[in-house]
Amino acid sequence: MKIGFIGLGQMGRGMAARLIGTGHELLVWNRSAGPAEALRACGASVAATPAGVLDADVVITMLADDAAVDAVWIAQGLIEKIPATAIHLNMASVSLRLAQRLRALHFDAGTLYVSAPVFGRPGVASTGQLDIIAAGPRNAITRCTPLFEAMSRRWFDLGEDATHANIVKIARNFLLGSIIESLGEAFALVRKSGVDPSHFHDIITGTSMNSPAYKSYGRLIIDQPDHATFTVKLGLKDVELALEAGGDTAVPMPLAELMRDQHLAAIARGYGDREWAAVGNYIAETAGL
Amino acid sequence: MKIGFIGLGQMGRGMAARLIGTGHELLVWNRSAGPAEALRACGASVAATPAGVLDADVVITMLADDAAVDAVWIAQGLIEKIPATAIHLNMASVSLRLAQRLRALHFDAGTLYVSAPVFGRPGVASTGQLDIIAAGPRNAITRCTPLFEAMSRRWFDLGEDATHANIVKIARNFLLGSIIESLGEAFALVRKSGVDPSHFHDIITGTSMNSPAYKSYGRLIIDQPDHATFTVKLGLKDVELALEAGGDTAVPMPLAELMRDQHLAAIARGYGDREWAAVGNYIAETAGL
Amino acid sequence: MKIGFIGLGQMGRGMAARLIGTGHELLVWNRSAGPAEALRACGASVAATPAGVLDADVVITMLADDAAVDAVWIAQGLIEKIPATAIHLNMASVSLRLAQRLRALHFDAGTLYVSAPVFGRPGVASTGQLDIIAAGPRNAITRCTPLFEAMSRRWFDLGEDATHANIVKIARNFLLGSIIESLGEAFALVRKSGVDPSHFHDIITGTSMNSPAYKSYGRLIIDQPDHATFTVKLGLKDVELALEAGGDTAVPMPLAELMRDQHLAAIARGYGDREWAAVGNYIAETAGL
Amino acid sequence: MKIGFIGLGQMGRGMAARLIGTGHELLVWNRSAGPAEALRACGASVAATPAGVLDADVVITMLADDAAVDAVWIAQGLIEKIPATAIHLNMASVSLRLAQRLRALHFDAGTLYVSAPVFGRPGVASTGQLDIIAAGPRNAITRCTPLFEAMSRRWFDLGEDATHANIVKIARNFLLGSIIESLGEAFALVRKSGVDPSHFHDIITGTSMNSPAYKSYGRLIIDQPDHATFTVKLGLKDVELALEAGGDTAVPMPLAELMRDQHLAAIARGYGDREWAAVGNYIAETAGL
Repeated sequence: MKIGFIGLGQMGRGMAARLIGTGHELLVWNRSAGPAEALRACGASVAATPAGVLDADVVITMLADDAAVDAVWIAQGLIEKIPATAIHLNMASVSLRLAQRLRALHFDAGTLYVSAPVFGRPGVASTGQLDIIAAGPRNAITRCTPLFEAMSRRWFDLGEDATHANIVKIARNFLLGSIIESLGEAFALVRKSGVDPSHFHDIITGTSMNSPAYKSYGRLIIDQPDHATFTVKLGLKDVELALEAGGDTAVPMPLAELMRDQHLAAIARGYGDREWAAVGNYIAETAGL
Repeated sequence: MKIGFIGLGQMGRGMAARLIGTGHELLVWNRSAGPAEALRACGASVAATPAGVLDADVVITMLADDAAVDAVWIAQGLIEKIPATAIHLNMASVSLRLAQRLRALHFDAGTLYVSAPVFGRPGVASTGQLDIIAAGPRNAITRCTPLFEAMSRRWFDLGEDATHANIVKIARNFLLGSIIESLGEAFALVRKSGVDPSHFHDIITGTSMNSPAYKSYGRLIIDQPDHATFTVKLGLKDVELALEAGGDTAVPMPLAELMRDQHLAAIARGYGDREWAAVGNYIAETAGL
Repeated sequence: MKIGFIGLGQMGRGMAARLIGTGHELLVWNRSAGPAEALRACGASVAATPAGVLDADVVITMLADDAAVDAVWIAQGLIEKIPATAIHLNMASVSLRLAQRLRALHFDAGTLYVSAPVFGRPGVASTGQLDIIAAGPRNAITRCTPLFEAMSRRWFDLGEDATHANIVKIARNFLLGSIIESLGEAFALVRKSGVDPSHFHDIITGTSMNSPAYKSYGRLIIDQPDHATFTVKLGLKDVELALEAGGDTAVPMPLAELMRDQHLAAIARGYGDREWAAVGNYIAETAGL
Repeated sequence: MKIGFIGLGQMGRGMAARLIGTGHELLVWNRSAGPAEALRACGASVAATPAGVLDADVVITMLADDAAVDAVWIAQGLIEKIPATAIHLNMASVSLRLAQRLRALHFDAGTLYVSAPVFGRPGVASTGQLDIIAAGPRNAITRCTPLFEAMSRRWFDLGEDATHANIVKIARNFLLGSIIESLGEAFALVRKSGVDPSHFHDIITGTSMNSPAYKSYGRLIIDQPDHATFTVKLGLKDVELALEAGGDTAVPMPLAELMRDQHLAAIARGYGDREWAAVGNYIAETAGL
């Protein structure tokens, strides 16, 4: 398929490389030139402007945040410029508000829009092992299916309303954060009574909490790696996406409020650029550990 | 082995039946006669008093709460009465405070004490599929090992300090409650945007949260069963065990505080005798659902 | 003095009338015509556009929220259009972010800017009994002083940095909200034990909490008036101003987070358009009262 | 009047001295001898045992906590030993649970019981400037009135049910703690924007929050005195009295839960023996101040 691709951050470049590797033709644009050039070396064509990638079957967006998506698609008018035959496949994680706005603007412009945020870190993007949550018009979903299959080990169809994919992504990331908060408190509790948190972690992930999320976040709290792939500051953004969506739809989320507070406190005390799970290490600090 | 068994509630009777079924000799006592008679029919002997079960290799306690354990072992003096050759194997979930007291009193009396709380509901107790967290003196643990193997699919050795098993159980039950809280908020959030919570649940338990705890509590929130095997009121007790232990060891647990509050509110609004996961349904109510 | 006045909501029209009554010459503009016409009857001149009021010694803004201030002063460019001889006196309550932006834009444009939010409800605005928190360049403050004296019983000088007045207003409104939350919980607690909350209220406001805020919010929780002068929804906005400012400056505010959650829950359960203190009545509901 | 007096801590000795100074005859007992001897010098008689003060018109209790009241009145049986002609006037702050138990035990024993906790610190006890909250049987209240008048500047009659005085005291102390929490957050917020908290404090206590509680706790947060008259640890006890009462009567108190958490965190970080208001200084620390 002929694919336009906008946004070659850590995730985007892995996904783009994977698409090339599975036989698709890529036309890419990125704000900074480096990543685009790297992909050119893999066989992609490089456009000079975002509008330069619109001549495609599907135009994928993998931009960092609401502001970047807004700047490219709304401020620069790509929503109106994309051909009616193409599909805008937005795989970035955006707020519910922006998701609603993109859906409405595409509808007004008569252009096709699919929302398909992903679960997974850069390492799995390049090997096609992401999980994808997709929603949008039926025919557009059908046309995107080969791309989902190339990029993911599993993908989920959330139906016609593109915003449904976004709220699922937001709610799921809130759950990840809540795992960090709860593990942080549980680890502090057992440590203060003399139990090795690593032993505790083995027990819970060997029984009723034997899921990847408990395993990886628990290990990160225990190991406290120097290098962060997803920081506390980025985690705070995810918590705020949940709170904003909750505020807009009148859903009280006391745990999300608590998490926001803990993230802010962790950032105020210097944990902001560490791995997200470091909120758990901040919690240990509040216990005097 | 010759086993004394005190406390034939739902869990205790399943465990006792399992021990008989795996060839052990049981001498049981229970406050009310019915469950003891039922076990007599399975081959157990029935004692007239708690002290009547002390002539055994191991005396297992599976009582409902701190007050019951205190009444039998401390107020009635079983700690001094148990023979030095026997082991008190306490499998009940008690507070950290009582755990510390039992350890100290047994130490002073020169009697053997093992703490081994269990994970699992009554159904798995009778089939020997519990998870067991054990701690206590090495020789006593060794002697109890055949019993652990009869009753569990997995058991974990937490070392010499009996209280370590209790704090692990307390911290793990806090984690279960935090799963209910977080799922309750996440379900409310996606529902208010039109997403079927059952679909959301399939996605998260099909990806990074594919653990038994997320599966079962999520299902319970969605299905809202009429019959409760573990109620919101009992859940509150577990949260309070975590808070008490946190208070005694100076561990701030803001999420546990929040959970206590939510449990009280759920009870005040009539959810007290429903299944623990109904806290998640109370959360939906706070969102106007 | 010759005064331009933009924004004739409930507060603004009382303040404008007071200024006319104390001998000032007013040139007013309002989005809807009604309030402007009412003031014309009191002796004000009415401008056809916001820019029409700029020919004045001081131009007062009393707009409803950030969006309205932004629309008039930034989007319509009044910041550049206001003469260098005039002062922009912003008495609206705006976010810390917008306050910083207004200060910077006025600085860049070389125009004079004073921030002076007020405490008080419409009734005291028309009688010149407001409290005013003012900050800005010294000479500008001096020139505005006669206006502060006309409108207030007390005014406070917060120094040169205009944003200081805004953060004080935000922090003080957060304190008001926290009084509602704490009284709501205290009232529910004593009621459940059979104590008349009115009696409890008399005791605390007769002793260490004998301040206007405890008196008025306590009475409102007890009396539950039908008519709202400041709603729960507006209270939520104030809480969110505190949270946003806290977020931007890395101040964890767990009580503000809790209040946001309680406000959302109160709104989800139908209290949104009632008097702010109705959050206290929502709390009674959570206690099953 | 002939008065028995049990408990000569800081508060008790001031109250006892005041009663002697207003012409009453005192018979005192205290666990440690020093304070009793000091009062002997003022004219009191000293009893060798608690039971030695029962030959009196009114026996006042001013003990430190539930355990001390339980030890003297329940474990040592004073409830049964006090003559039917005397009144037990309990002025200590006890839990709702113990208050209910004392009421019931006195009722069963046919002895007169009045509950009358006080507001105020030691300095005002010795000058008869306390506030007193009293409840109990009508005739007993009438007989105690001269004592209330001698010890207080104001006293409040809460009716026949002695426990009503206790829940009012508990709810009022919760409100004091909530003032510390809210001021702590507000001070941190304004400081991070460059506003002197002392200036902010002047403004709020000069307007809608001009009550003694805001004045004194605000000053204590700002001044951070070395010497504590009422510590963070004691403050935690008060918060826990509110939470226990809320738990027993199904009143969710999310702010009290939050406060418990903040107190625990403050204690874990070394603020436990500082003045209660130091929770506000802990909050500043969480903001990186």
